[in-house]
Amino acid sequence: MRSTVETQRARRAEERRMKPRITMITLGVEDLERAVRFYRDGLGWPSKGIVGKEFEHGAVAFFELEGGLKLAVWALASLAHDSGLAVGPPTGVCLAHNVSSRGEVDGVMGRAAAAGARVVKAARETFWGGYAGYFADPDGQLWEVAWNPGMVPAD
Amino acid sequence: MRSTVETQRARRAEERRMKPRITMITLGVEDLERAVRFYRDGLGWPSKGIVGKEFEHGAVAFFELEGGLKLAVWALASLAHDSGLAVGPPTGVCLAHNVSSRGEVDGVMGRAAAAGARVVKAARETFWGGYAGYFADPDGQLWEVAWNPGMVPAD
Repeated sequence: MRSTVETQRARRAEERRMKPRITMITLGVEDLERAVRFYRDGLGWPSKGIVGKEFEHGAVAFFELEGGLKLAVWALASLAHDSGLAVGPPTGVCLAHNVSSRGEVDGVMGRAAAAGARVVKAARETFWGGYAGYFADPDGQLWEVAWNPGMVPAD
Repeated sequence: MRSTVETQRARRAEERRMKPRITMITLGVEDLERAVRFYRDGLGWPSKGIVGKEFEHGAVAFFELEGGLKLAVWALASLAHDSGLAVGPPTGVCLAHNVSSRGEVDGVMGRAAAAGARVVKAARETFWGGYAGYFADPDGQLWEVAWNPGMVPAD
């Protein structure tokens, strides 16, 4: 049986890995209803339509893609508000990487920062009941690292 | 047994569907080697590194993600060259949707255009031995619709 210190160390090392995973692709859009018409009605992609209107900046539409991947369309202003960035190109697309615990969020954020990412927004509790942070890769591409109790990966 | 006309009609209808699928996410980057260092060496994501240097604008690195999704990093200039767009925000990210035949590429491009997409580059033979076109969604988000003989979806 490993000591508590060894167990904690192993868990921390595991938490600092960033598995090769993209959970959701969020497109920041100028007109949410237009985007839903395009993807759901125009392309015929499955979606429950706009949800989350009860939250400020919460209105969003999700599309279930093959292989478990999700596409989200969200107002540019909401993505900018949530990430703390100005509305503009870097907020046009956000890649989401979901993990299994708050500790893993912190670990992955640390790993990304160590790899040269800029921490855009330190991980914190979110309005949707999860825990998440944002980083930008060396080209400014926005990533969200999230623990979402309703969307926990299998491992 | 259906007549040839009916069979062709059914195939054309099938080709004009756009299944809810994202095959690959391409990030347009300013510095390809820096991007590979970040994702491969920094984050530890599996990649064979930069391949395709033998083609003009061909140098690219692929990363194998969970669930069969692929991430590619490609020079912004190459993505601009290939799509025919000026280097800039709309070429920063490209979402790829792979299909099983040239006919399906044409069908999906038509479907997207009918849904309000702008055809950025009509489908044509590609330098990598496939057949592909680009469209932009109503927000300008770039999509590639591709038949790649080396990356054909299961269905």
